[in-house]
Amino acid sequence: MSILPKSIEKVIASFERLPGVGPKSAARMVYHFLRSPKNNTKELAEALLEMKESIVTCSSCFNVADSDPCEICSDKQRELNELCVVEEPLDVVAIEKAGIFRGRYFVLGGVISPADGIDPEHLRMADLKRKIQSMTDEFNGEKTLEVIIATNPSLEGEATASYIRDMIKGIKAMNQDSVEISRLAMGLPTGADLEYADRLTLKRALEGRTKI
Amino acid sequence: MSILPKSIEKVIASFERLPGVGPKSAARMVYHFLRSPKNNTKELAEALLEMKESIVTCSSCFNVADSDPCEICSDKQRELNELCVVEEPLDVVAIEKAGIFRGRYFVLGGVISPADGIDPEHLRMADLKRKIQSMTDEFNGEKTLEVIIATNPSLEGEATASYIRDMIKGIKAMNQDSVEISRLAMGLPTGADLEYADRLTLKRALEGRTKI
Repeated sequence: MSILPKSIEKVIASFERLPGVGPKSAARMVYHFLRSPKNNTKELAEALLEMKESIVTCSSCFNVADSDPCEICSDKQRELNELCVVEEPLDVVAIEKAGIFRGRYFVLGGVISPADGIDPEHLRMADLKRKIQSMTDEFNGEKTLEVIIATNPSLEGEATASYIRDMIKGIKAMNQDSVEISRLAMGLPTGADLEYADRLTLKRALEGRTKI
Repeated sequence: MSILPKSIEKVIASFERLPGVGPKSAARMVYHFLRSPKNNTKELAEALLEMKESIVTCSSCFNVADSDPCEICSDKQRELNELCVVEEPLDVVAIEKAGIFRGRYFVLGGVISPADGIDPEHLRMADLKRKIQSMTDEFNGEKTLEVIIATNPSLEGEATASYIRDMIKGIKAMNQDSVEISRLAMGLPTGADLEYADRLTLKRALEGRTKI
């Protein structure tokens, strides 16, 4: 005899597969559904299915979107000569929420991580290369494209940023003067306590010190 | 313009309502669904709906179950004269997993918590009272019913245990000798470090000390 009804065990197993959810929190979530009115559960299940049906990948920036091209890529008000390269769709959300960037994005779909078996060819490197080439072709020397590499400040994020820089520098068919490559600044986050900052953060903060 | 497609925002909002899930983890979960194959999402949504359709409440112990009465209540092998009173279905799972109890259960549906507006009448106190009365009636003085109160060792759990004890002691139509009331032991958990134990746990461990 299994302790739990099969139908409950099945849902708990599905929830356990979600990121950051262990067996205990999966069980708590599922019991929450058991307690809540049937309509709430139905709404969530239907919203989930509807989302899977309606969401597409923008063929220009590879972000998840309602339409292709996405709202950001089709927005004529945005700067055409700033391209922010991020790992995941949630990074776009974070930067958009900050309201500090008016260019466009490119979603890599991850970072290079040999330990996890993720090589450059598993990411959208070829698409990025193509995009940069076609953008600079379009500018035809009249504008400079700035590629802002906004991968995470992790070892993998750093390695991926270096890879992208080298890849862009290696595009022979492109006038290198038409592209500028930059990386998000690293240092102490606002509100941080110097005392608790890790060695690498302190090192980066010192290296990147600015005159005041 | 909203940053996220509406259909994604809707699902994130639903997940945020789950216990222990904040905005960031809700977003992570939803992006996990966006990345995974459509069939996985469909399976989860359907399993969730099927669970809501098929699960019933056992009218004898009020646990969630496949059938009414549930497997435990209809299992003739279990001790009839031990009734373990717990707060939630997950508590039944925990005790069953330990494999140390062969009696039956009664699920209260929560604890008395005036701060959260939960009074005894919001729990299954009347059902518990009825159940204890009918069980002792059935035993007809031949057996003693042991009611083991297994609410959590929290302030609310303690208050609820006291309430249940007083409620049972107050049943005038019942021979009080036919019922024994007990409470799970409190003290240091296995593997705990005395140094880090809280004051109340230490107090309980000392009060409940056993001769060796």
